[in-house]
Amino acid sequence: MTAPLNVLIASYIEPELVGRIRERFPQVEVVYRPDLLGTPRYVADHTARPNRTGAQEAEWQALLASADVLFDFDFTHLGDLPELAPKVKWIQASSAGIGQFVKRMRYAERTSWVFTTASGIHARPLAEFALMAMLMFGKDYPYLFREKAAKHWARYCGFELHGKTVLIVGLGSIGRETARLAKAFGMRVTGTRRDLSKPVEHVDRMFPVDQLHDHLPEADFVVLSTPHTPETENLLSAGAIAKMKRGAVLINVARGAVVDEPAMIAALRSGHLLGAALDVFAVEPLPADSPLWDMPNIIISPHSASTADTENAKLVDLFCENLDAFLTGQPLKNVLNMDRLY
Amino acid sequence: MTAPLNVLIASYIEPELVGRIRERFPQVEVVYRPDLLGTPRYVADHTARPNRTGAQEAEWQALLASADVLFDFDFTHLGDLPELAPKVKWIQASSAGIGQFVKRMRYAERTSWVFTTASGIHARPLAEFALMAMLMFGKDYPYLFREKAAKHWARYCGFELHGKTVLIVGLGSIGRETARLAKAFGMRVTGTRRDLSKPVEHVDRMFPVDQLHDHLPEADFVVLSTPHTPETENLLSAGAIAKMKRGAVLINVARGAVVDEPAMIAALRSGHLLGAALDVFAVEPLPADSPLWDMPNIIISPHSASTADTENAKLVDLFCENLDAFLTGQPLKNVLNMDRLY
Repeated sequence: MTAPLNVLIASYIEPELVGRIRERFPQVEVVYRPDLLGTPRYVADHTARPNRTGAQEAEWQALLASADVLFDFDFTHLGDLPELAPKVKWIQASSAGIGQFVKRMRYAERTSWVFTTASGIHARPLAEFALMAMLMFGKDYPYLFREKAAKHWARYCGFELHGKTVLIVGLGSIGRETARLAKAFGMRVTGTRRDLSKPVEHVDRMFPVDQLHDHLPEADFVVLSTPHTPETENLLSAGAIAKMKRGAVLINVARGAVVDEPAMIAALRSGHLLGAALDVFAVEPLPADSPLWDMPNIIISPHSASTADTENAKLVDLFCENLDAFLTGQPLKNVLNMDRLY
Repeated sequence: MTAPLNVLIASYIEPELVGRIRERFPQVEVVYRPDLLGTPRYVADHTARPNRTGAQEAEWQALLASADVLFDFDFTHLGDLPELAPKVKWIQASSAGIGQFVKRMRYAERTSWVFTTASGIHARPLAEFALMAMLMFGKDYPYLFREKAAKHWARYCGFELHGKTVLIVGLGSIGRETARLAKAFGMRVTGTRRDLSKPVEHVDRMFPVDQLHDHLPEADFVVLSTPHTPETENLLSAGAIAKMKRGAVLINVARGAVVDEPAMIAALRSGHLLGAALDVFAVEPLPADSPLWDMPNIIISPHSASTADTENAKLVDLFCENLDAFLTGQPLKNVLNMDRLY
């Protein structure tokens, strides 16, 4: 009789969600030891650090040694995870953008692990963040907040999203959900995609990323929702920013490395860009001496725009779907492609 | 030979829009004297005060005396307009909510004027304001702004609009556009309407306003988009506010008189309500000593959420449609009903 498949929950999720996995897969041993995991600082926190005693650490390493599957990376043992968890075959990540991280860790060279990303889980909250930002600039929130602070009342004029153009760099799950919502507001939607072979719903015009500069001048809003890959690194370069329409708004929910941050800051200061809503930065946490903190036309989100109170339930749904596939030898969903890095 | 119909433009619109009216109605005398009107302080400003010399004032009064139709009220002669403009038959307003104002001026008793409102013109920008507010509270903007001011980075968790319930008081053009957008975000939409005889698209549940208290407890967001009438005055009373779900958000794009403002402030201070986005107030301009200015969970808009750079073009389209009807003896659109006050 073979031992049951051993699944180790390596970052905190709610006990009722663990119960959901156990109920659906009674044949699987689901190891859940919240006492050995970090205490979440907020709902769906997957990077909290645990404080383990020596005995607890030994216990944790024994669990790693027995694990066949990890639910999330073990953030306490990133470097030596291949050695500590030799039986692991598959890791389900809690994040979509893990390509650069897996590359940096050289996991592909050191292991035969399969990685599945959380792609799709965060599309809705990130698209909501993008629309919030567009609406806030449409209603000139810097004016509203300045006037409120001054207790001053003067009527003013905003603009409607209706009829404006949004250019979405990366029409993956986040970009497509953003396109869908933008279209509901009556916006014109353009964007880039690797696969241009078939049309994408709610997108008026698609083009390859190497034509980005041709299309930037017509966009009132530019949303970055592309993975960080060698091709997208510094994609919104100083030259690209210079091509953007005067008064355009930049929204970055991708990765900081996709933008030339100093060039962006200069364009925001000069008034070439109206504003920016940024969930990601060149360096995170954003350093206290970054000029972005003091700029009134910047919405800063601490890499949390993807985090919603419904996230863990969706992650567990995805994990269950993949666990079912894993057990029956079917292809997993969201397998990380190490060539594309997403 | 009868004199041509005389239309006096009584608040500022752009010259090219006047040209559009003249082009479409060459048989009409369109009197446009921007030098005698107030200089707009922002696009689509319809309440700017002119500074006329004595001679200019005499000239203006002569124009009023000849006018058959007014595009907008003459805000410089509200009290004596019936005497100064005895030939007027119809006034096209630039605002939707004119019922209480016309009643206060006793125009209906003093004249046989027909009033047409701007109902529908402002639906889109007001619905965009409502969605902006919902998204801002979903992403906990008070947290984001506090953290930015402190140059502090700590990840956190927001909530999605998806699955939340919005209750819309008044499913007129603003309410219905809000419902449409809320449904695009996957929200549950409920609301009140005078006419319940047929379903309204994008609305899951409609009920008469006297059942409001039964439905308030299930709403995460309450949007007020009802006209100010005797029936809606103080509709969101202290008792109604007490029925609202703990942590709910109030959005008022109707009129300040629809809400018990002191009770609302108390509920916002106690934490019973998460926040509010207010475009209208009991007293406008909002007095400098109002506690609302200092409260971090309030978005204050100076009765401008309806104002967008596209407003005057839409107003002129509506006016042209009505002028065509007026000239051909067809029913006008948006005629003010003095019984309902909208």
